Amino acid sequence: MSDMPQVVDILEEGPREGFQIEKGKIATTDKIALIDALSSTGVKRIQAALLVSPKVVPSWADADAVIAGFTPAPGVAYTALWFNEAGLNRALAFRDKLALKGSISLSASEAFSRKNLNRDRPGQIEAMRRQTAVHLAAGVPVTRIGIMAAFGCNYAGDISPPQVVATIQDGLGIAAEAGSTISDLSLADTMGWATPTRVERLVGEVRGRWPDLDLSLHLHDTRGLGIANAFAGLRLGVARFDAAVGGLGGCPFAGQPGAPGNIATEELVLLCEEMGIETGIDLERLIEAGRLAERIIGRQLPSAALRSGTLAPFRKKAA
Amino acid sequence: MSDMPQVVDILEEGPREGFQIEKGKIATTDKIALIDALSSTGVKRIQAALLVSPKVVPSWADADAVIAGFTPAPGVAYTALWFNEAGLNRALAFRDKLALKGSISLSASEAFSRKNLNRDRPGQIEAMRRQTAVHLAAGVPVTRIGIMAAFGCNYAGDISPPQVVATIQDGLGIAAEAGSTISDLSLADTMGWATPTRVERLVGEVRGRWPDLDLSLHLHDTRGLGIANAFAGLRLGVARFDAAVGGLGGCPFAGQPGAPGNIATEELVLLCEEMGIETGIDLERLIEAGRLAERIIGRQLPSAALRSGTLAPFRKKAA
Repeated sequence: MSDMPQVVDILEEGPREGFQIEKGKIATTDKIALIDALSSTGVKRIQAALLVSPKVVPSWADADAVIAGFTPAPGVAYTALWFNEAGLNRALAFRDKLALKGSISLSASEAFSRKNLNRDRPGQIEAMRRQTAVHLAAGVPVTRIGIMAAFGCNYAGDISPPQVVATIQDGLGIAAEAGSTISDLSLADTMGWATPTRVERLVGEVRGRWPDLDLSLHLHDTRGLGIANAFAGLRLGVARFDAAVGGLGGCPFAGQPGAPGNIATEELVLLCEEMGIETGIDLERLIEAGRLAERIIGRQLPSAALRSGTLAPFRKKAA
Repeated sequence: MSDMPQVVDILEEGPREGFQIEKGKIATTDKIALIDALSSTGVKRIQAALLVSPKVVPSWADADAVIAGFTPAPGVAYTALWFNEAGLNRALAFRDKLALKGSISLSASEAFSRKNLNRDRPGQIEAMRRQTAVHLAAGVPVTRIGIMAAFGCNYAGDISPPQVVATIQDGLGIAAEAGSTISDLSLADTMGWATPTRVERLVGEVRGRWPDLDLSLHLHDTRGLGIANAFAGLRLGVARFDAAVGGLGGCPFAGQPGAPGNIATEELVLLCEEMGIETGIDLERLIEAGRLAERIIGRQLPSAALRSGTLAPFRKKAA
């Protein structure tokens, strides 16, 4: 257990992921209310909005209004996600509220990239070259590589560590060419193929090659193994995770309606805190935010911790 | 990873656990149908019924009819659960269909034992002395100790490994006095307090003291950590687990309505098989049985694997 981190840094993606995948219309004020509820929990990073064309994701047509509307909390970095220059330009209008960083986002599965973005491997490299240049030209640093489908793919099957390594090399090549230095690497289990042993193998492989990159895991709980996979990462010292309150979200392109989405932030926080790893997050407040998310989207979210609550009241009663 | 077992043996407790906690009336034929569906999956042990007074658990009033009604599958051991001589006598009537074994069942939390069974520590020891004698007199071996609330308790708070060790010693004392040899030890996270580190500590402690006991874990997914806890056990070589199809069940005395129940058998099987550990269970058939369980009880069960299915069809499509 000696490699477990003492502190874990969580990126709360519930608002962006959650409202992206929901079908019904959600009020701008409700989106803002969830972001503000989350910023009161102690979480230090919140992905607040998705800046893409309303034709592609109608549920985020109000992204600019949401960003304009939330109340920045001290010590919280708010981010947004975008995939092209138009998105970047919308983000640039909120330089005062958003932590702006560019990301080189590549799929380790060419089949997924074709299905998701209609791009083959050279196509996605070319797109990320252009995107990197656009960001740097706008003065936005590009310091992160994100690898989608890093453990397996509903269209390509199993993804091997060498395929992920090759994809990271593509990303590092793009960055080097542009004169940008990568510090952060995110490995995403976009469609729920990871297992603890696959996490161990891939993290080991990537760590061995690039020991200086700050590694984060983006895990989905599609098949119920998400928290076990997070524990496998923690054991190896991974100290950065993405998660979504209530287990909001999922992959809109994975073709599995009804499957759980991202690992639930409150389950990850519970796992960490009960093992003595600090998250800085108030779990009771986070569960309140999860219940707000349920009221907003109007259905029960998959998080078990949301049903059963924390251990704190039982400890208090027993003391 | 070197301690991981090559084969895992799962006790399917879905029928007993599931129908115990459900409020509505479930038809005897439906209970039998689920047991028969489960026996076709390759699972080798099924806990088929609960033999207690219908006044205490009305939903199992038809236990004898259920046991009489299922069709024994070759290679499958069927068990039932009972807590007193009356239950034992009902079980003895089915010597031909049930694998009869007695168990010394003790709570590591005295507060839980008081709440659950109105017994303090001396009271539960005395009750298990009597029960052991009754079983041995009937020619039923008593080879197992089961420890409830081995990780924590909603009434007593955290439970320390020394408390569990003392409770095991109580059980071993009862067995020794009766001249019975204990071979199996089950540690139950009855109310969802376990974490991977707590599993590691307790399993390490118990293994160190009693290396020859065959250890099994009974884990609940109350707060979403169940599969991570199972992985922690697997890493230490634990090769026996209880689980319930669909994640049926839960603890009727824990006071957390709506919280998930036992770890879902299909998530445990998926975890094992995807890490190269044999379970002998056909996951597709198991998921079918889980869907049958959902139809029978008329609501969605908490298992994520039940929503998203196995990886097999995606691998096949991709090949």
